[in-house]
Amino acid sequence: MASQNVLTPQSEDFPRWYQDVVAKAEMADNGPVRGTMVIRPYGYAIWERIQAEIDARIKEAGAQNAYFPLFIPESYFSKEAQHIEGFSPELAVVTHAGGEKLAEPIVVRPTSETVIGEFMAKWIQSYRDLPLLLNQWANVVRWELRPRLFLRSSEFLWQEGHTAHASYEDASRYARRIHTDVYNDFLEKVLAVPTFLGIKPASERFAGAINSMTCEGMMRDGKALQMATSHELGQNFAKAFDIYFQNEQGQAELCHTTSWGASTRLVGGLIMAHGDDRGLVLPPRLAPTQAVVVAVRDEPEVNEACERIAAQLKGAGVRVLVDKGRGSFGRRLTDWEIKGVPVRIEVGPRDLAQGVVAMARRDSGAKVTLAIESLATQVPDLLEEIQGLMFEGALSFRDGLTRDVSSIPEAVEAAQDGFARLAWDLVGAEGEAVLRADAITVRCLQRADGTMPVSDDESGLICIVSKSY
Amino acid sequence: MASQNVLTPQSEDFPRWYQDVVAKAEMADNGPVRGTMVIRPYGYAIWERIQAEIDARIKEAGAQNAYFPLFIPESYFSKEAQHIEGFSPELAVVTHAGGEKLAEPIVVRPTSETVIGEFMAKWIQSYRDLPLLLNQWANVVRWELRPRLFLRSSEFLWQEGHTAHASYEDASRYARRIHTDVYNDFLEKVLAVPTFLGIKPASERFAGAINSMTCEGMMRDGKALQMATSHELGQNFAKAFDIYFQNEQGQAELCHTTSWGASTRLVGGLIMAHGDDRGLVLPPRLAPTQAVVVAVRDEPEVNEACERIAAQLKGAGVRVLVDKGRGSFGRRLTDWEIKGVPVRIEVGPRDLAQGVVAMARRDSGAKVTLAIESLATQVPDLLEEIQGLMFEGALSFRDGLTRDVSSIPEAVEAAQDGFARLAWDLVGAEGEAVLRADAITVRCLQRADGTMPVSDDESGLICIVSKSY
Repeated sequence: MASQNVLTPQSEDFPRWYQDVVAKAEMADNGPVRGTMVIRPYGYAIWERIQAEIDARIKEAGAQNAYFPLFIPESYFSKEAQHIEGFSPELAVVTHAGGEKLAEPIVVRPTSETVIGEFMAKWIQSYRDLPLLLNQWANVVRWELRPRLFLRSSEFLWQEGHTAHASYEDASRYARRIHTDVYNDFLEKVLAVPTFLGIKPASERFAGAINSMTCEGMMRDGKALQMATSHELGQNFAKAFDIYFQNEQGQAELCHTTSWGASTRLVGGLIMAHGDDRGLVLPPRLAPTQAVVVAVRDEPEVNEACERIAAQLKGAGVRVLVDKGRGSFGRRLTDWEIKGVPVRIEVGPRDLAQGVVAMARRDSGAKVTLAIESLATQVPDLLEEIQGLMFEGALSFRDGLTRDVSSIPEAVEAAQDGFARLAWDLVGAEGEAVLRADAITVRCLQRADGTMPVSDDESGLICIVSKSY
Repeated sequence: MASQNVLTPQSEDFPRWYQDVVAKAEMADNGPVRGTMVIRPYGYAIWERIQAEIDARIKEAGAQNAYFPLFIPESYFSKEAQHIEGFSPELAVVTHAGGEKLAEPIVVRPTSETVIGEFMAKWIQSYRDLPLLLNQWANVVRWELRPRLFLRSSEFLWQEGHTAHASYEDASRYARRIHTDVYNDFLEKVLAVPTFLGIKPASERFAGAINSMTCEGMMRDGKALQMATSHELGQNFAKAFDIYFQNEQGQAELCHTTSWGASTRLVGGLIMAHGDDRGLVLPPRLAPTQAVVVAVRDEPEVNEACERIAAQLKGAGVRVLVDKGRGSFGRRLTDWEIKGVPVRIEVGPRDLAQGVVAMARRDSGAKVTLAIESLATQVPDLLEEIQGLMFEGALSFRDGLTRDVSSIPEAVEAAQDGFARLAWDLVGAEGEAVLRADAITVRCLQRADGTMPVSDDESGLICIVSKSY
């Protein structure tokens, strides 16, 4: 209740609600150069948790981390025709360094296919070197005219995976494995965001890809957010950068490459997929702080009890913080609500005398009284329960706003506040143009049963269309 | 023995030995833009271990991670006079972005004091907001005319800590805490590199600092490497960026700030502090792979035994890899030696029949036969023993090449292959100029007992002088 007036309500102005949450939860600020972003400690702690979870899954899938340069010679970009066309308008260019004008301008990487292609060509000799499975965590720059914190910034942080394979089949299989076992697994199990998995129509493919796969999530305003993408690059980059291998018969063959990425955009998705009028709502598995132990008053025995409770919870594997009783209790509660900490344990002198505390859940707002000695067993169970409920809640919200339609006008209507699902045959490239006039795009193509198409064959597929970020 | 001819011997040509190790251990390659670096998976795995160890210590010291933009308006650099003077020659400048010439050129950060100063001014209101303790892991760019992989590259990775305090004393105490509890603790306990801790003479201070502290390590060629630095910035940046706070009496006061950093240079230091003619020698606590289980021959029962042994070791907390018996056994051993893996367990069919394996240590080269069932208890103990021995070995090597001298000519002689220690009164700014003619610099000033000076008062101090990287 206390936070009622702190944030603009979602129903009143969703974009302003988003900005308010980012500011009041102290997640990020605009940087001094247009479109850049300062990620503040709370926002960065969320990103570190995202990184840890995705990184573990990438390593499990056999890829190794490496680091490639920020600076790429401008000439590299012209080697792959579609790639240069796709990225030219977004490039930042260094023309001077070390006090002198450079002979060749340098591009600040918008993505690393080109420079990694160059080194793959150098490192790969024979089929024994394949597959080559690389990933990097890095910053990239794409000049943005309409920036929004986390969602679209001129510089953002991401991971970009790049792999080379001996066959089309192996490349295709690996890109799909990353898409489901890394991205979708993380999104559904940790971020608690149900996704529509599918392939992009040709018009929305990554510049230089033969197939792009996407995980699309629904935000609380019914719009879509593309949360991660995986691309089959075929032999396009291998041709442009001479990535050959010697096969078992001793003949030179071109490799098949893939690339796949997820970025700080996921922080924006997290905010918009679960947030409410009181602020962030973090799924427990993702939350940097899963439980906060709040002293009602600044008294030594209360603060000490908070520390003891926190130590018990820490011992039970809970990520926990103590908020000692300094400053207004109501104001502190509001702050923890805005920050979306899943469980709040309030410790007051009267309850303490009876060996109990009040425990409030961020998701439902429910509050119960619990014996202190039971916290170490009950809180971990509750966190898992909340995780499950948040996913189910997001799923029913999305399914409630996803409508099967059978014409473009119906799709346009449905996409005013949700997703429309219809036969791709009814849309096609012409239909896409019609939809785009209403700022609606085809988010992905799926098989009729909702699964990922196994190839880029588009016949008989359905599509999900909506407005999007 | 097998690797005898793979690397240039240290005694023949140390810089070439270094290059050979970086190449043959597959740690890094030169990037396409002059001075940039591609960090390959093995080099990056070492960096990830360094990051994890330093990051844990930074968090323990109470600082929080955040992220500030890569791009800084050029005007920010002119706000602090010494800072602009120090960094101007090294800046890379973006003049075009999004297809247009920019109104104001943008600097690619060489360090982030200026942009972080701008935000500290915004976030700090009162003494209750202090100290503000921030850290970021990022890439920075300083244009290099004589680049060397890891040691000096135009782009490098690092962490940079930035803090603001209410008093000179608090700032000074915190900078010293970071220097000893984060950097020196990591260097001595994990990297196994003994250091000389001290302050830099005024001529070697960071651009804009009132005091710079350093950890200096000795490399195997007797030269020094500055492994981490911590700076007291006084009120210089607070003045330039208006970083004020309201004190308890309600008056506005300028903050006192600090900054401190360690970079991918540490990977170069690790190579040169411990490496030998057979390649890298990694201290066990740092090694990404602490033990490798090598199959002598490619036979199913041998490979399976390797997997079983690896599972046992993993269960005992050892970071372990299996090298199945494909390709030449001798060649594989050489590769693991070059990569410096502390312990190698060789599994052959004959030994297997008797329930034993051969275990070789990378540090001493010693090889023993051990019962398979004892590995899970013996290997962890051995790794800790090697860690201690490596530190002691590096310490006695350094102390053997550190000589007390009492004149500049003697210092010049001693610095041909090691460190000289002498009274700072005998050197001073004039002596520094004489030494510099022989490419010798004052690495740090210490008190006579070898401890860090408590202030920037230089009277009665001794200095360490040497050649350096």
